[in-house]
Amino acid sequence: MQHNIDKPILAITLGDINGIGPEILVKALADRELWHVCRPLVVGDVKAIEACRQWAPDCPAPQEITGQDLPEKGMPVVSKGLKVPTRRPGVLDPEAGRCAVEWLKHAVREAVAGRVDGIVTCPINKQGIHMAGYAYPGHTEIIAEMTGSQEYRMCLFAGPLRIVHVSSHCPLAVCVQHVTLERVAQSIRVGHDALVRLGLERRHVAVAGLNPHAGEAGALGCEEETIIAPAIAQCKGEGIDCSGPYPPDTVFRRMHAGEFDLVVAMYHDQGHIPLKLLAMDEGVNVTLGVSVVRTSVDHGTAYDIAGQGIADEGSLCAAIRLAAQFATARNREEP
Amino acid sequence: MQHNIDKPILAITLGDINGIGPEILVKALADRELWHVCRPLVVGDVKAIEACRQWAPDCPAPQEITGQDLPEKGMPVVSKGLKVPTRRPGVLDPEAGRCAVEWLKHAVREAVAGRVDGIVTCPINKQGIHMAGYAYPGHTEIIAEMTGSQEYRMCLFAGPLRIVHVSSHCPLAVCVQHVTLERVAQSIRVGHDALVRLGLERRHVAVAGLNPHAGEAGALGCEEETIIAPAIAQCKGEGIDCSGPYPPDTVFRRMHAGEFDLVVAMYHDQGHIPLKLLAMDEGVNVTLGVSVVRTSVDHGTAYDIAGQGIADEGSLCAAIRLAAQFATARNREEP
Repeated sequence: MQHNIDKPILAITLGDINGIGPEILVKALADRELWHVCRPLVVGDVKAIEACRQWAPDCPAPQEITGQDLPEKGMPVVSKGLKVPTRRPGVLDPEAGRCAVEWLKHAVREAVAGRVDGIVTCPINKQGIHMAGYAYPGHTEIIAEMTGSQEYRMCLFAGPLRIVHVSSHCPLAVCVQHVTLERVAQSIRVGHDALVRLGLERRHVAVAGLNPHAGEAGALGCEEETIIAPAIAQCKGEGIDCSGPYPPDTVFRRMHAGEFDLVVAMYHDQGHIPLKLLAMDEGVNVTLGVSVVRTSVDHGTAYDIAGQGIADEGSLCAAIRLAAQFATARNREEP
Repeated sequence: MQHNIDKPILAITLGDINGIGPEILVKALADRELWHVCRPLVVGDVKAIEACRQWAPDCPAPQEITGQDLPEKGMPVVSKGLKVPTRRPGVLDPEAGRCAVEWLKHAVREAVAGRVDGIVTCPINKQGIHMAGYAYPGHTEIIAEMTGSQEYRMCLFAGPLRIVHVSSHCPLAVCVQHVTLERVAQSIRVGHDALVRLGLERRHVAVAGLNPHAGEAGALGCEEETIIAPAIAQCKGEGIDCSGPYPPDTVFRRMHAGEFDLVVAMYHDQGHIPLKLLAMDEGVNVTLGVSVVRTSVDHGTAYDIAGQGIADEGSLCAAIRLAAQFATARNREEP
C-alpha cells in the first residue's frame, strides 16, 4: 500500500457485527472530514456494513479488496476470507466473536509489518470471544501479546483531557495493590511519551493521589508519601515535567481548566468518572506503551440498542482523528 | 428566641477566624435573599466580622447579643464571652482553633435544646483544633458525639445532585472494607430519609457499584453481587424506592440528567470527583443521621487566600439555603 506522510492508513476493525460497530462505522465514514486526515482500511465484513448504510447514505459503498492497493473510490474492506455469520443485532454469537478477534489480529500484523500506520477498534463482546474459545480479557491484551509489550497502559483521551491509568480492569481492592513506585513512575513516563508523540510543546503531567484529599499529609493514607511522591521525584530526575500528588477531587477540574496536559489516575474509576462526565460521547481509549498506534471507542457493543441506527458515532470519529494525529506525527518523525 | 415556622433560626458558626470564614460570612449575609428564608444567628466574634465588612458593605453590622432575643436590625452575634485572639489571616493559631470548637459546641447545644432550628458551619482547621488539644477528626464527629448519633453519614448536595457516602475520610484501602451490607443498607435509608425530609415527592435512590463497570457480573469484583445487591433488596423490602448497583462512571451523569434523586457512593472520591466537577462552588456538606439539622461549606479554611476578600461565598450561601429548607420542612411537620 502506498503511504502518504500526511494521510496515514488506518486499519479500522469492525468488532462484533451484532453490536453497534457496523452502525457507527458507516455513520463515521459518512463524514468526509475523516477521509481528509486518514485513509481508512476497514477490516470486517462487507455485508454487515452494507446492511447499515440505510442510516448513513453518504457513506461510500464498502468494497472488498484482496491485494495491497487501496482503491481511489469506495470504502476498502478486508475480510481475510473468514466465514462470517449472518448479522443478528443484539444476539450473542461466538462466531461473531471469533471473526472480531481474527480481524483484530490481522490488523495488528499489518501494523507491526508497517503496512498500515495505526489501528482503530470498534467494540467486541468479551463474553462472545470467551465463548469462541479465546482466553484474552479484551482487545488490549491481544495487541500487547502480539507486539511483545509489557508496560502498556490503558488511557482515556478527549480533546485536551488526557488520562493514563495506573491500573485498569481489576477489583478496587486489587487496584490499591497495583499502586507501586514502579507502576506509577512508568505511567508518568508513558503519559509524557504520549504528549511528546502528539507533538505537544507543553507537556505537564499531573499525578493524582490515591486517597481522599491526597492523604492529607498521612492522616488519610500513606501511599502519597511513600509511593507516589517518590515516583514523581524519580521522573522529575529524568527530565519529565510532572507534579503532584494532587487531591483526586479537584485535579481533573484543573486539567479541564487548562492547568495540566495529562493526569495519571491511580485506578479505573478515578479517571473514568470525570472523563465520562466531561466528554461522554467523545472519549477515546488509547493503548500507550505498545509499538503500534492504537485507539478505540470508549464504549461496548451496546446490544440493547444495536440494529436501530441510533448509536452515536462520536467516540469512533474521535478515535479515528486521534489515531491519525498519532500516526501523522510518527510518520513525520520516521518517514 | 421566637420561632417562626417559615423562617427558621440558623446558628452559623464562624469557624477558624484566620481562614476565609469571616470573609464568606459577610459576603453571604450581604445577600438579602438569605434573610428571607432564615433568621441568622452568628456564633463567633464581632471584631473579626467587622474587619471583613470592607468586602461586603451591604452586610448588616454585627451586633453582640447576650440574651435570647434576636434584634430586628443588624447581624446578631453570640461570642459566649470567649477570649478571642487577634485575627491574623493565614496564620495557624491553636487559640483560633479552640474558639472554633467552642462556638460549634454552643451551636449544637442550642440546636439540641430547640432554641435554634439548624446549624451551618464555616470551615475549621483540623491541625489548629488538634494543636488546641481536641482529639476530634472534624466538625461532624463533635456533632455526632454531642447528639449521641452512631449511624451518621457525610453527604454532598448541590441542587438536584445529592450524594450519600458509605464511608468518608479514610484511606482507600480501608474504604473498601467499610462496604458492608449493613453500612450500604443504612446509607440507602439515610439518603431516602433525607429526600423525605426535604419534602420531595419523587425519591429514587440509585446505588453505585464499588468496582469498575460495577464488577461486570463478578469478573471485576464480587462486592456488587455479595453485598450491594442484597442491601438494595433489603431496602426495597422496606418500601424504599432504590435500584442498582450501577457502573460508577455513568451513574452520576444519569443523576445529573434527572434520572435519580440521590446516589449512594461507595467511598469519598467516587462521590466527590463528580460533584466537584459538576458544582464546584455550590456544593454543600450535609450531616445526615443526626438529630439536628446541620449543613456546612464544602471547602477548607483556604489559608492561602485568606485576608484578600477574594474567597467565593457560593458554598456558604447554598449551605444556608439548604439548612433553611430542611429546618422549614421539619418545623412544618413538628410545629
